[in-house]
Amino acid sequence: MVHIYFNPWLTKYKKPFGAVRVGKHVNFSLFVDSPNVKEVQFVIRLENGPHGKEYYRMNDEGDGNYTFRYKLGEEAGLYFYYFRIKEETNEGSYRMFYGSQNGLGGEGRYYGDENEVIPYSLTCYRSAEVPPDWYREAIFYQIFPDRFASHLQKDKESGGRVLHPKENIFIYGKTTDLPYYVKDGNGEIARWDFYGGTLQGIIDKIPYLKEELGVNALYLNPIFEARSNHRYDTSDYFNIDPMLGDERTFKKLISALHENDMHLILDGVFSHVGKNSKYFNYDGFYGDDVGAYQTPNSPYFEWFKFGQYPSEYKSWWGIDDLPEIDKDNRKFQEYIYGDVDSVLAKWNQFNIDGWRLDVADELPDTFIQGIRKNLDTYPEKILIGEVWEDASRKIAYDKRRQYILGGGLNACMNYPFRDIILGILQGNKTPGDAAIELTQLRENYPYDVFFNNFNNIGTHDTERILTMMGNHKGKVNLALGLMFMLPGVPCIYYGDEAGLAGGKDPDNRRFYPWGHVDKELFKVFKRWISIRQTDKFLQNGEFVPFYSAHIFGVLRYTSKGYSIYLVNPTDRKQIIETDELNFTRVCPLSYEKMKEILDGIEIPPFEGYFLSENIKIENFE
Amino acid sequence: MVHIYFNPWLTKYKKPFGAVRVGKHVNFSLFVDSPNVKEVQFVIRLENGPHGKEYYRMNDEGDGNYTFRYKLGEEAGLYFYYFRIKEETNEGSYRMFYGSQNGLGGEGRYYGDENEVIPYSLTCYRSAEVPPDWYREAIFYQIFPDRFASHLQKDKESGGRVLHPKENIFIYGKTTDLPYYVKDGNGEIARWDFYGGTLQGIIDKIPYLKEELGVNALYLNPIFEARSNHRYDTSDYFNIDPMLGDERTFKKLISALHENDMHLILDGVFSHVGKNSKYFNYDGFYGDDVGAYQTPNSPYFEWFKFGQYPSEYKSWWGIDDLPEIDKDNRKFQEYIYGDVDSVLAKWNQFNIDGWRLDVADELPDTFIQGIRKNLDTYPEKILIGEVWEDASRKIAYDKRRQYILGGGLNACMNYPFRDIILGILQGNKTPGDAAIELTQLRENYPYDVFFNNFNNIGTHDTERILTMMGNHKGKVNLALGLMFMLPGVPCIYYGDEAGLAGGKDPDNRRFYPWGHVDKELFKVFKRWISIRQTDKFLQNGEFVPFYSAHIFGVLRYTSKGYSIYLVNPTDRKQIIETDELNFTRVCPLSYEKMKEILDGIEIPPFEGYFLSENIKIENFE
Repeated sequence: MVHIYFNPWLTKYKKPFGAVRVGKHVNFSLFVDSPNVKEVQFVIRLENGPHGKEYYRMNDEGDGNYTFRYKLGEEAGLYFYYFRIKEETNEGSYRMFYGSQNGLGGEGRYYGDENEVIPYSLTCYRSAEVPPDWYREAIFYQIFPDRFASHLQKDKESGGRVLHPKENIFIYGKTTDLPYYVKDGNGEIARWDFYGGTLQGIIDKIPYLKEELGVNALYLNPIFEARSNHRYDTSDYFNIDPMLGDERTFKKLISALHENDMHLILDGVFSHVGKNSKYFNYDGFYGDDVGAYQTPNSPYFEWFKFGQYPSEYKSWWGIDDLPEIDKDNRKFQEYIYGDVDSVLAKWNQFNIDGWRLDVADELPDTFIQGIRKNLDTYPEKILIGEVWEDASRKIAYDKRRQYILGGGLNACMNYPFRDIILGILQGNKTPGDAAIELTQLRENYPYDVFFNNFNNIGTHDTERILTMMGNHKGKVNLALGLMFMLPGVPCIYYGDEAGLAGGKDPDNRRFYPWGHVDKELFKVFKRWISIRQTDKFLQNGEFVPFYSAHIFGVLRYTSKGYSIYLVNPTDRKQIIETDELNFTRVCPLSYEKMKEILDGIEIPPFEGYFLSENIKIENFE
Repeated sequence: MVHIYFNPWLTKYKKPFGAVRVGKHVNFSLFVDSPNVKEVQFVIRLENGPHGKEYYRMNDEGDGNYTFRYKLGEEAGLYFYYFRIKEETNEGSYRMFYGSQNGLGGEGRYYGDENEVIPYSLTCYRSAEVPPDWYREAIFYQIFPDRFASHLQKDKESGGRVLHPKENIFIYGKTTDLPYYVKDGNGEIARWDFYGGTLQGIIDKIPYLKEELGVNALYLNPIFEARSNHRYDTSDYFNIDPMLGDERTFKKLISALHENDMHLILDGVFSHVGKNSKYFNYDGFYGDDVGAYQTPNSPYFEWFKFGQYPSEYKSWWGIDDLPEIDKDNRKFQEYIYGDVDSVLAKWNQFNIDGWRLDVADELPDTFIQGIRKNLDTYPEKILIGEVWEDASRKIAYDKRRQYILGGGLNACMNYPFRDIILGILQGNKTPGDAAIELTQLRENYPYDVFFNNFNNIGTHDTERILTMMGNHKGKVNLALGLMFMLPGVPCIYYGDEAGLAGGKDPDNRRFYPWGHVDKELFKVFKRWISIRQTDKFLQNGEFVPFYSAHIFGVLRYTSKGYSIYLVNPTDRKQIIETDELNFTRVCPLSYEKMKEILDGIEIPPFEGYFLSENIKIENFE
């Protein structure tokens, strides 16, 4: 049997590692252990490219090594490649192929039939997504504005006080009440429920956020005028929701944050609007003839796609409450980002520091790029997209997306990391599987995007981490540690640090438990925040995961040193033996060094072990 | 054919008219137009009495008139009577009988078979229910406390402010929002909804009530601590619900009312308590071991009837939320009215002016009499019972009730009048039928009770009058006019005067529309209130209804004059012709007088005609 080997995660076989910029060279090296090799070919094609498959003869470097230096074209996209080996023996000539085992990186496999080959893939990106200076140093805090703090509800005598209540809403009497959706017989929301959080409430809590907790950036769920408590059903993109405050207060919030070296990003919801927005105006709240539902003469009429006008209209996921917008419509694009007085122009001029784009899958690449172009005319703004999967490989509506190939998103919400972290700690993923998945993501994403990605262990769209960990605070500590140790910018979901539990929506949107904070958990969060604030290797340091049967490890390093985090996700004590550790990529520390620092370390059940050291690291990829 | 006639509504045949006190004499007179009469018998029995049927020979007064003077016994109750006529002709002897047509009064009918006779009935009462001095002059205003006024919600900037919010309630953001029950999948209330009306809010509105509107008494729906917004699920009989205020404010309210010559009655809910009362304490809100549900050692254990303890318990109409109380339980009786520090003792000492007993049908007569005895130890207190039908004839749980026979209720909520008023105005009852039903009620009730009865054209338990009248304000005027003209004490349901509409519960419990009062309707209410304040004949004047095919009339009179109200419940103009008017009882005004004052009067569609005159009236029954 012929022995063939290739592994793009090792620089010996592919260099540089991971995604590569357009026009750059990539060196491939295949090892074939056979005296009968006649010719080895490198086969590559750019997805949707003009040329189809290209076949290149690889250079025989002797000792079974065949190399090829491929120059990427000027177009970004995904390349797919594999190897073709022609052998000649006395009995005749054979063709063999080598490709990926399963479409992922790492060690591949031999194929006999070219039609069956699963190729390796390679991300070719347009430009590096170098983030604003402040961004990689950020520790974000996500606030669901209705549920964080109110400046009106300090009076214990009276409850439920809100700013400018909308019509036909319900207000919770106590902030300790559990969230509840008021639904009618058809399962539709009959009345929206509010706790009454305000922007002034957030301003009041800046000392808490900065001094007590230590975060330095905020991500706010939508704050524009809307009917619901989550405000993903925008009513008016140009207006702060009156229940939250007004533009004066919003300005005050931004100034207060910036004075405290803190940053702020907003949630941009451009895929759909509310049925009762001024754009659609189903129930006529905005007057008699302004909305697309009311008259085809509405300035917003062409934003929407109607069947039988007006009763049949396209809506997001079929939810009547959220009429979908035709993002290819020129007028809408001008309205959101194109005009001098566009939505983005307005809020960017308030000096916000970036946007998170809701449901990026629903936004055409050109739309996202249009937004990005707008943002690039302002300094220091970040653009983060909501993508739930590996954004470098995402196909949405039968189309491969260009999210992170340059000129689109700077970063994505890192739900894949959350899945891996939960997988490790819930025992659904072995440490080895987790390390492989992480390495895969590291390979797939352009370098900068990978380190820009917006990490979370829970958001307004997921169950809370404490609940996911079965109320086990030790596991929350590990989950948080992993989020802080892994590449990317961490974001804490409000209240997680205070011990808020919560299952599926709406339970994950309880009000912040002021006065009843879980002190033990708070300390855990504070510790990791403080590590991230001071540890040089966590913001930009290269990343290698490692594992044994029962231990998962993260190694972060630069040429100046390293930090390591070991996690014991089992209910038994584990003792580290360096010999049992596996690395998906080359470990930059020597075997002896690893032995010195790790061997014999005991980690109790569901605990972690963190160490950091400033030393010169030679073996730097 | 023999002609026989009897009609207890005409004094010629029965005197006195209507109900009669124990031990008094009643004169009966039967007319039989036959030469062959051998003997006429008066047959009578007291329901549940010791004697069974009694047969008396009537005196032949000549000219076909047969009379009998019957002395009632000393026991109160219902008497049933009819007549037995023995005729002898050449062909032989016959027996004939004369009784009621249908169990009601008025003209009766001939029966050939004694077993088929439906007897007339006669109410024999123990004692006259002479009301407190203030009561007959009262014009009540019913307030559903959560929905009338709040002293906290004057600030237009903020909504939903309430005193001491309970756990897990919802508060309306605007008082203009429509009421909505938040129910779970099983149709059970998941969260109680509150607008946040307060006792201080009522105090603040006393000038409105007294000066602007002109009412002089309040009936408050329950105000004791409870979980729900209606508070019929009492949690603690000894505590004002903290969302409404406290005892200090309650005292203030009573003082303020009394200083303004106004009176106040409370809602006494003694049939059941809330599941989460301190007595039952299902969810343990009141501690670990106080409630009957928690431990058989609870001081309240024997108030309740358990099957399989504790999960099976008797509840009101099977509503788990309202465990039913065993009102025959001595301890409960002591707690409510017997002890020196009973519930009644406590609140009576606050100087309230009376009680309305919720669901009187559920309270044993002895229980009601116990309450009455308690009240009689204080001056000037009224006791009104919630009975939906003719309380003099009510059978509840197979038992004839003793509500109004003396020593029980002073008055009942007069839903039968509401039915008649609505029937006339909705065209479901002819004026003639209405007049007969009213006369029947006049006959059945003891005189004082009839004039004590608590009239309404809508309460928290019914659709609102404006809605029942199809939003026809003219019809509301007629309904209100009839309520004010008919005997009894009128009670206005809060907001009816302001133009609040509302269908079934909870729609009939909207918040009072401060600032958006219907001025036209308000004038209508003010006019009738002012008539009732000044018209001498409406508080105690005798009552005779009359009718033609299309006109319904009410005549009220004393020896000093009369008031008349004519109603045209049709959509065509009606012109009065005295000749066409029918009276169920003797009209105290002469034919000539009636012609003088009514003949030729034109009444437009859905309008009324009121007149009042001070003159000496001779023909006084």
